[in-house]
Amino acid sequence: MVYVVAELSVRPGTEAEFEAVAAELMQEVRAREPEVQLYQFTKIRGRDGVYRVIERYASEAALEKHMAEPHLRAAMEKMGPLLAARPQLEKCDPVGVA
Amino acid sequence: MVYVVAELSVRPGTEAEFEAVAAELMQEVRAREPEVQLYQFTKIRGRDGVYRVIERYASEAALEKHMAEPHLRAAMEKMGPLLAARPQLEKCDPVGVA
Repeated sequence: MVYVVAELSVRPGTEAEFEAVAAELMQEVRAREPEVQLYQFTKIRGRDGVYRVIERYASEAALEKHMAEPHLRAAMEKMGPLLAARPQLEKCDPVGVA
Repeated sequence: MVYVVAELSVRPGTEAEFEAVAAELMQEVRAREPEVQLYQFTKIRGRDGVYRVIERYASEAALEKHMAEPHLRAAMEKMGPLLAARPQLEKCDPVGVA
């Protein structure tokens, strides 16, 4: 099992469009990728336009498969122009019993 | 539903002790707090001694109840001397369907 925690910042005024793309992506991932156990965009309180994405994969292979999915690429293309900075990604390994 | 994402940094050499306290805390939370839907300490790859804690609560009330739990306070007391910096906490609200 592996977690990915990302931070995405969007340009002011693009939040609604970004969240629509995010909602569609979450729907696609949940429908098509059973090995993605958690895939949630969230808004960080007190930090306008900054999103925390929390993801959990059953295995390293599930993460690699996700990264190659057409629906992810399509969403990244739509999100690209909305971003105010490069996404920050962390891979995290569970401590103790996951 | 509300997520909490935290960052905890520990003093070099205290990782094993910290992880033992974390493992015990996760066990207590999972056993005693049914409204805590996710409570996972993780190690961030590439950042020695830095932990990402990912938590999900069924409601704001469940989060407040958690913050007052004796087992959390006991764990924080044990962890306190091991920390290299103040913990960073974020509250995050799900975008779209959680």
